[in-house]
Amino acid sequence: MKNIIQSVKGTREFYPHEMAVRRWLYALIEKTSESFGYQEYDGPFIEKIDLYAAKSGEELVKEQAFVFADRGGDLITLRPELTLSLARMIAQKQNELTYPVRWWSFGPFWRYEKPQKGRTREFFQWNIDMIGVDSPVADAELLAICATFFRNAGISPEQVSILVNHRQLMEKKLLELGIADDLKKKTFQLIDRKDKLDFSAWKAFATDIGLSNDQFTGVNEILNNRELWQQSPELIAVFNQLEIMGVREYVKYDPHIIRGLDYYSGIVFEAWDMGKDGRAVLGGGHYGNLVADVGGSPLPGVGFAMGDVMATILLEKYGCIPEIKPFHDTVLVTIFDENTLQQSLGFAAVLRKKGIKTILYPEAVKLQKQFKFADRLGVIAVAVIGPDEALAGNVTIKNLTDHTQITCSQELAAETVRQIVKINS
Amino acid sequence: MKNIIQSVKGTREFYPHEMAVRRWLYALIEKTSESFGYQEYDGPFIEKIDLYAAKSGEELVKEQAFVFADRGGDLITLRPELTLSLARMIAQKQNELTYPVRWWSFGPFWRYEKPQKGRTREFFQWNIDMIGVDSPVADAELLAICATFFRNAGISPEQVSILVNHRQLMEKKLLELGIADDLKKKTFQLIDRKDKLDFSAWKAFATDIGLSNDQFTGVNEILNNRELWQQSPELIAVFNQLEIMGVREYVKYDPHIIRGLDYYSGIVFEAWDMGKDGRAVLGGGHYGNLVADVGGSPLPGVGFAMGDVMATILLEKYGCIPEIKPFHDTVLVTIFDENTLQQSLGFAAVLRKKGIKTILYPEAVKLQKQFKFADRLGVIAVAVIGPDEALAGNVTIKNLTDHTQITCSQELAAETVRQIVKINS
Repeated sequence: MKNIIQSVKGTREFYPHEMAVRRWLYALIEKTSESFGYQEYDGPFIEKIDLYAAKSGEELVKEQAFVFADRGGDLITLRPELTLSLARMIAQKQNELTYPVRWWSFGPFWRYEKPQKGRTREFFQWNIDMIGVDSPVADAELLAICATFFRNAGISPEQVSILVNHRQLMEKKLLELGIADDLKKKTFQLIDRKDKLDFSAWKAFATDIGLSNDQFTGVNEILNNRELWQQSPELIAVFNQLEIMGVREYVKYDPHIIRGLDYYSGIVFEAWDMGKDGRAVLGGGHYGNLVADVGGSPLPGVGFAMGDVMATILLEKYGCIPEIKPFHDTVLVTIFDENTLQQSLGFAAVLRKKGIKTILYPEAVKLQKQFKFADRLGVIAVAVIGPDEALAGNVTIKNLTDHTQITCSQELAAETVRQIVKINS
Repeated sequence: MKNIIQSVKGTREFYPHEMAVRRWLYALIEKTSESFGYQEYDGPFIEKIDLYAAKSGEELVKEQAFVFADRGGDLITLRPELTLSLARMIAQKQNELTYPVRWWSFGPFWRYEKPQKGRTREFFQWNIDMIGVDSPVADAELLAICATFFRNAGISPEQVSILVNHRQLMEKKLLELGIADDLKKKTFQLIDRKDKLDFSAWKAFATDIGLSNDQFTGVNEILNNRELWQQSPELIAVFNQLEIMGVREYVKYDPHIIRGLDYYSGIVFEAWDMGKDGRAVLGGGHYGNLVADVGGSPLPGVGFAMGDVMATILLEKYGCIPEIKPFHDTVLVTIFDENTLQQSLGFAAVLRKKGIKTILYPEAVKLQKQFKFADRLGVIAVAVIGPDEALAGNVTIKNLTDHTQITCSQELAAETVRQIVKINS
């Protein structure tokens, strides 16, 4: 046997089982997004590199994007994120759209990162945004969508927390410490890195960026104050609304949440697995003028993104992914021999016309082999038309779960099949 | 306003309307594939170029694929087709899988072609294959799936025909004319090009490849013989089975169908729009040993692929795409003022919990503006909780279609809403 040519590092193959999990995740995202009235959209999967030049974090495009010249010489990028494609789509139809725009998407993205647990180079991402409004109700809605997703998945507030902060609140508090402008940005970076460094390295970083001892002490006091949100009218409103919507328990104030990207200007949040070795599962926030950067007029918005790899690991960890029984709703029609082949073919067509998923065994091999096939697939209803059945226009339906069988007319058999596949699925 | 950075030529943006069409097409493909017991799978979207080197038509990879070196130096291809990824996936688990394998997929592909009507550089493709069996039943099943797709879409046999031929039949007939081996391949090319050249150019091509006058006359006789299939036991069996399955009317014998790719070895077929300026919509056939080329043991199979662009043009042409009413199943909950905001929030949450898609207007702006928003979105049920309703725990539900309204308790309102969104959708 020749060597099999391997797939590209960091990509995944979706065999039917893995695909069923992806489909289940997609359905969960779809249900959650649409229950709040969001519409699905999608951008191109390849974009010109210029699109990202204006705005994305430097690292994302310069270090992590797959970039190449196409046959026409243009520099093309496999999209590393959706936000700028979204911004362009909004900008192009800025005067035609009805605001607020509520859109969601689920599609592939690429980042040239070191493959590791929870990280692949080709991954899927759920993006959801409300654009064109600047209100606590909008902020609360995105948080509620996030919480509802976890609730729909079967994740409890003890397992996952959505940690929330507000950039304006942090700016106000830093200003009270005399931290403004460029030092503010650097202090945001400092806060963002707290859990990535040990304390002494982190303190050294604070000195490096130019924080005084008093300022460093002040920043630490801020980060230890879990009641800080009570100084933010916006967060008070948001928490109040989350309470009314019945999802307050999923959301916690956390002054450590800053988010790396410059374009966030209001609420910022991350959902974290609160269990052992827990990591962030999604992140998002409020932005002030994203559309302007691609050529439109400024529009505010709020949104978040969740990768499928971490999400699937989380949902698996907490036992949320249902057992996949791909063929429990499907019947196998066997072919007894060449003489009854035609009746089996016709019967299979009748079942399909009645809305029953039907596999026809494609050869008149030994019946034992066909039953073994049913068994390996997990099919539980098997139809046999042997010579006797063929003569009488009948079919025998076998239930592989309880080993019962019923012989009835081919015309009436659909109901029998329907009962077996329903009872057991 | 700055210039908006354009998307890459030949890519598409899916605004919610276009996305709804793509979703509808996907659902149709899913329903059809699964009614025959096929399971969805997917390969990576990027592959090493070596994967295609072995087998694909030269043109496809050398001239049409997007190829680039990744940051590690490997030559990467945006997948131009799925067959070789499928072959690898089968080869990797060759001894674990249950045969016949029935798999389908719908995902993105890239070819650097000249963008034109019906052709984009980034497109979606439906792939469906049965692997591991070599029987007329398998061939007939794939043709039946194809026909069932068109029937499910609302396309009639007068609008689309699936044109079928058999490579072995053609080989036999060519052999009778003394055409074998290398000349056979070239004659297949000749037949494949008949509708792309005018007659004199086509005849010149025949002379060029080395056909004698008698052989050329013989080939023409073959191509004019629509009853040739009666000399093929395989095609007789296939047509007979299609009759029994009730889809015979969609399928016609056509000796012109050859398919360009070398790997087809049995039945070959293409679905054609039979209307004015009609073009091919999908193509497929039976192959003998695809898996062997990527390192597995030989396995036969039969399958086809359909691009979304041509398919959508066809379905649009024949009026099959249903009117998209994205918000006819959705209610808008307005916010009357800051005082009633909380009740509107809570009411929206209750509706969602009862499974009703609910948009909350995110600001307490003038009610007129909120109704205009509902109107532009096409929402037909609007809920208002004004001061009177708030005091009594009530809500007024307005039906924007017939301009009726009902005031009832918030707790009982879900039923009223459900009736409006059901009646009108």
